[in-house]
This record gives sequence, structure tokens and C-alpha cells, in this order.
Amino acid sequence: MINAKVISIGDEILIGQIINTNASFINSKLYSIGVKVEKVVTIGDNEEDLLRELDDSMMNFKVTLITGGLGPTHDDITKPILIKYFNDKLVLHEDILEYVREFFAKRNLVMPETNVGQAMMPSKSKVIWNHNGTAPGIWMEKEGRVFVAMPGVPFEMKAMIEDDILRMIKEYFAAEFDYVLKSKTILTTGIGESLLFEKIGGINELIGKHKMAFLPSPLGVRLRIDVKEKDDKSASNEIEIIETKLKDKIGQYIFGENDDLIEEVIGKMLKDSGMTLAVAESCTGGLLAGRITDIAGSSDYFIGGITAYSNQIKEGFLGVKKETLLQYGAVSEETAKEMAYGIKTKFNSSIGVSVTGIAGPGGGTEEKPVGLTYIGYCDGEQCYAVKWNFGDNRERNRIRTVQACLNLLRNELLKKNI
Amino acid sequence: MINAKVISIGDEILIGQIINTNASFINSKLYSIGVKVEKVVTIGDNEEDLLRELDDSMMNFKVTLITGGLGPTHDDITKPILIKYFNDKLVLHEDILEYVREFFAKRNLVMPETNVGQAMMPSKSKVIWNHNGTAPGIWMEKEGRVFVAMPGVPFEMKAMIEDDILRMIKEYFAAEFDYVLKSKTILTTGIGESLLFEKIGGINELIGKHKMAFLPSPLGVRLRIDVKEKDDKSASNEIEIIETKLKDKIGQYIFGENDDLIEEVIGKMLKDSGMTLAVAESCTGGLLAGRITDIAGSSDYFIGGITAYSNQIKEGFLGVKKETLLQYGAVSEETAKEMAYGIKTKFNSSIGVSVTGIAGPGGGTEEKPVGLTYIGYCDGEQCYAVKWNFGDNRERNRIRTVQACLNLLRNELLKKNI
Repeated sequence: MINAKVISIGDEILIGQIINTNASFINSKLYSIGVKVEKVVTIGDNEEDLLRELDDSMMNFKVTLITGGLGPTHDDITKPILIKYFNDKLVLHEDILEYVREFFAKRNLVMPETNVGQAMMPSKSKVIWNHNGTAPGIWMEKEGRVFVAMPGVPFEMKAMIEDDILRMIKEYFAAEFDYVLKSKTILTTGIGESLLFEKIGGINELIGKHKMAFLPSPLGVRLRIDVKEKDDKSASNEIEIIETKLKDKIGQYIFGENDDLIEEVIGKMLKDSGMTLAVAESCTGGLLAGRITDIAGSSDYFIGGITAYSNQIKEGFLGVKKETLLQYGAVSEETAKEMAYGIKTKFNSSIGVSVTGIAGPGGGTEEKPVGLTYIGYCDGEQCYAVKWNFGDNRERNRIRTVQACLNLLRNELLKKNI
Repeated sequence: MINAKVISIGDEILIGQIINTNASFINSKLYSIGVKVEKVVTIGDNEEDLLRELDDSMMNFKVTLITGGLGPTHDDITKPILIKYFNDKLVLHEDILEYVREFFAKRNLVMPETNVGQAMMPSKSKVIWNHNGTAPGIWMEKEGRVFVAMPGVPFEMKAMIEDDILRMIKEYFAAEFDYVLKSKTILTTGIGESLLFEKIGGINELIGKHKMAFLPSPLGVRLRIDVKEKDDKSASNEIEIIETKLKDKIGQYIFGENDDLIEEVIGKMLKDSGMTLAVAESCTGGLLAGRITDIAGSSDYFIGGITAYSNQIKEGFLGVKKETLLQYGAVSEETAKEMAYGIKTKFNSSIGVSVTGIAGPGGGTEEKPVGLTYIGYCDGEQCYAVKWNFGDNRERNRIRTVQACLNLLRNELLKKNI
């Protein structure tokens, strides 16, 4: 099995200012192709420490991935040290320089001269293009070992790993990849981890010699199935068998797989049906509309929304009745229902969804505690609202509420057999 | 200066299933007492790897903190390896055994016999009591070096660090604690890393013997200043001197420090001035309102918003003129201005902010490329819109656009001398 080491360079990790999420991303990606990370090391931007780690890698690891220390400023040490360690020299890549200049030009900026350095690469290296920033990645090989340097900015590093580096590792070590690891993640929402575990029942019978991990988050519980087989076909078969059993047991909670987003699933259903959507938000303050419009092309089915943070807007723009607000309050089933009806009618959409709640930390009472939320739904046939409570942490409460709105909408669209 | 290494033992970190938050906690705690963590290493429960790390520690680090691998099961390797490395033997501590028995008894459980092992400690070690679990910590000293082993369970480890270990380190190295470390992070937005670097100019003159790190993100560039001085007062002085110089050079881009959020800064300014805000969004689809309402108490100054994803809503609800849309298009300076004016007027707020743009990936033309964005602003005195382009990645474009709206608002509020 191919072993690997990850080196993170960054004083901000060593002083505890940021958490090393880059390493966990890299680890899981390498694991997914069957490369075993045996060591993760974080060091500062210090020449001696990095040289010592390169020595250790040369002795003990086939693959070494380095993040951080690759930028235009004074504290970026990775490239000079690779040059030193591999006894190499820098050469100018005109195509990179051109790309960096354009990167700035597109943003109506002139490239600062410090950025010329980004286009200087070790002569023995392969360039890993950075489509999201200006510092390219560096791939170097020596005596059957691979060293890869990437920027520390998460989205730049992640794209390089997914677009190029995993593939390059598989190609370089092709002879040693005599097995296939395959994994698939089943996405559930609207059910907690323990209840899901109970509903699935005997895990060992279900997965046999394979592995399954429960990965909970405020958006739902992801189930990652990992299988190791001799070839791609039997790996796919094994996954399919497990997946079919899962669908039998918990199908109603499954909204997608791998990187699917519930807002994408809903968007597709709306688009296919020719229906349109509008939303009225109070406690989530725009986050629901924000999630829906995360999807490119959402303008095909999303008309818009109103963030009605004050009662004045609920009344004046959504047509919630003054008596309703007085009698039941802004956070009530009745108000949620009228908000959903109001936004549907005013924005002339097929469906209206609304949400009103007490996000906290203030504003709760004994009768209406922090976390109390009503989600309203209205289409041509029905208008109703349901009650939820997602706890008193403002941030998580808002995330879970938006997810519940989207899941309610998904369930309604499913009923329409789109 | 006392340097330190943190060793995390755990396969679940190496496969990327969990993030190493233990290390960041330990790092920040050690940093706060002036111990410099120079290396963090994660390894699996593998004897050879741990022995190699102990050797490295003996050579290079005064303090080594180990988490994980200290429990009652077969894969808990830390204690046996410490015994081996320090050529020691286990002795039974009756008081620990009594404590563990009681720990189970309190939970109405009989102690499983495997737990007797928890009361067996290296004869040369000091015991660090674990008030939240059954595995005590181990403190060992050799030739002026300290090795501490703790359980990997976060709340057990954290209490040990705070209750005992920091104090024990300070006592053991009392003679060397003749300095103070202090850091402060200055938050900037609205300017890129390289341009900021250029505007600051000679970094070395500015920071002298101290350190400054550039930490870029889509929300802006953070500048972390680190100083080391003989006492707390001179450390604060040095930070203040650097901060003052920074403010001279780049003051207009600084919106806060440490954990401040720009939406919080703006919220405070609005609240203090008694002004209210409403927003009209197209391409950001609710995210701007979402950020503003992330702040508890935002209902004091935020009236609400309209997500006008379709022209029908821009016209019907924001009062953008049909001719404006026809002549200049939905993504134009004129439309942005009318949207800002419209939301201010309709929602009756002191200030209206609007945003309209082409978030992509589709919808761009040569004249109006993906990423083109106009941000509108309107208060009692002026209405205007500015043009931006934050690149063609939909997600980051939207994040940067929201940040630019908030920064524009901050600058306008500053001009009002609130």
C-alpha cells in the first residue's frame, strides 16, 4: 500500500488560531483512492524544520503533500527550500506569468510586481495549475518518491487535489494500485444520527466485510460506504447491494448522494415541473433564498423573496393580517401560513414557503422559547404550517431551519410525482 | 524560549474522518503562557512511529504533549511505549483504582476488570488526575525534558491542561519564563494581499524584531502581529506601536480586530446612530440579508429585504422603471441605483443597499461578463452605484460581493462620523 505524509506549514495553526482542516480534506481524499496517510505534520515557516521533514519523507514516505508557504510575500518558504533540497533552480514560465497577469486584469487590477515570482518554477518540477489563485502547485519526483507543494488557501488547494493531484498519484504509482477502493456517500436529512442507526438495524449484516461511517452535520447525516475489491465492477456491485438495502430501510430520508445538494435536487424538480417558487423569511433573514440561489440557473424557477424582519413588512408587503399578528403573534402557525400565502400571491409563484421563528439568543418567553419556528407552505391546493424547535444556538438553529424548509419543499414536490 | 511538540494519536484523524481540534486547543493554551509549539504530529496507533517521535522530542523539544492512545482497550499504546522508552515499570496506585471504581459506581455500573490497568502507572511518573474520565494523565521528566500523555477525549484532555498541566509546565521551567508573548490580529477588507503588502511597504522596518503574518480569505486579509517582550506592558506597547503605524498606512481598509465581524461593526454603528437599513438583492439572492441577520439583535436596525431575482419583482416591488431595465439592463449602474432607492423608499428605512450582477456560470456576454456586479447605495442625501467584478466562480463571487456591500456601507457610515 502506498503511504503518505502531509506537511502543513503555518504559524497560525501552531499558535492555535486556525484548525488544520486542510489536512483532514487531504487525508480523506487520499484515503478514497487507497493511499494511506501515516503521518500529518504541522510546522512553522522555518527552513530547518521543513528540511528535516523532507529528509524524513525521503526515508519513510512514498508521497508527501505540502500545503502553505506558497505565496507572494516574505514568509513563503516552500519554493526556495524545495529548490535547495532538490538542488534545482528556478525558471520562468511565460504561460504562468501570462495567466497571473490576466488573473489581475480580469479584476481590473494591475499585477503587483511581487507576483512575477509566482511564475518562477523549479526546473525539475511539473506545474499544477491553480485555476482559483495565482500560486501554482509544484510536483517533484525523486527515487520513486513524490513531493507536491500546494498553496494553503483551502479552495485553491482543494481544486488542485481533485482536478489533478489524485489522478497524477494514481498514474505515477499505477503498478501498485492492484485493488480498487470505492466509496459512496448517501445523504439523509430530517432524521437524527441515533434514530437513523436504529432504523437501519444490524449494521454488520448490512455491510458485511465493508465499512460504513455515520457523518452527522446540521444539514443531516451522511452515510459513507467504503468497499475494497479486486476490480471496479465488483466494487460497484458491492456498493449497490448495500445501497439497495439502505433504501429499503430509510429511503424516505435519502435526498441524494455524494456531493448532491438538497437545493439542487429541489431546483431540478421545480424546473422539470415548470413550477415557480417564492419565499418569505423572518428568522432566517435571507438564508433560505441564499441557499436556493446558490444554484446556477435558479432564476428559471425562483422568482424572489422577502425578508420580513419587522412586522411592518409582514403586514405591508406580505399581507399578514393585523389581527393575526395581534392575536397569535409574529411567531405562530397562523402568521407562517399567511406569510406563505402572501408571498405566493404577491410574487405570483406556484409555491410559497415561509419561515418565522425566534432565532435567539434574546426574545424567548416560557410559552415561545428561543428556537421555536414555524415553517409555512402554500401552493394552489393547500396552505399549512408546521412547528419545529432546533435549539437555542442562533447559528445552528438558522442552518437547521433552512434545511427543514428545503426538506419540506422536497417532500411536497415528491408527492406531486415530478 | 521553551519549545513544544504535540503528538496526536488517532487513525480517525489520518483517514480524514475527524479534524484535529485537540491540537489547536493545546496550541492556543501553550501559546498563551509563552510556550512555542513548533511542531504538531499526527500518527496512528503504531509502536514504531511513536518511538521515533519520542526520539525526535528528546533531541529537539523541551515539552512534548501526547493525546490519545490512553484507554482500556487493545489499541491504546501510549503507556506501554512510555514504559519501554523510559525503561520503567508499572506500579499500582490504590487511590486511582479506588477513584475508577467509584467513577463506575456513581453511574450504577460495575467496573470492568480491564479498567484495573488504568490504575497502573509508570513508577517514575507523576499522576495527572482526570476528573472527567477514567484514564489519568502521565507526566514524565528526563534530562530537562517533559513528556505528558493525556486521553484523546476532548473534554477530559482540556480540563487536565487547564487545571494542572499549564501550571506544572510553568513550575518546571520557572527559570526560563522571563518573557511574554502577545498577539493581535488586525482585520482588513476591500484590498488584496499583494496590494496590501505594497501599501504597507517595508515590513521589516515596521515590525522590527517582531512578526507579522498575512492571512487572506474571501472576506479580506487578516494581519496577525506577534510580539515577544520581557513583560506584559512592553508587549502591549510594542503591539500598539505596530498597530498605529499600520493604521497610518492602511487605516481605511481596517474594520476591526481579532474576532470582530464586519456585520457586527456595521450593526453597532447603525444602532448607535438610530438609523435603519433595508436591502434589495439580485445576484446575492438573500445572502446579504442573511449576513446582516447573523447578528443577534439585528432586528433593532434591520427592517428587511427583497430578493428580486426576476425583473418582474424589480419593477413591481422595487419600483425600478421599465425603461431603465429596457435601456440599461438588469445589471447596470442605473438599475442598482433605482433598486437602492426603491427598497429605501418602500421599506421606509434610513439607508437602502442594493446589489445586481451576473453570478454565473451562465448569463455573461462580452459587454457584461460573468462576475460583473453593481452595488447601489441610497440614503437621505445621496444615491449612487459602483461597479465591481469579483471573478467567475459563482460561490466566491457571491461571498465577495456581500463583503463589498458591507464594506461600502461601513465606509458610508464612517463618513457620517457616528
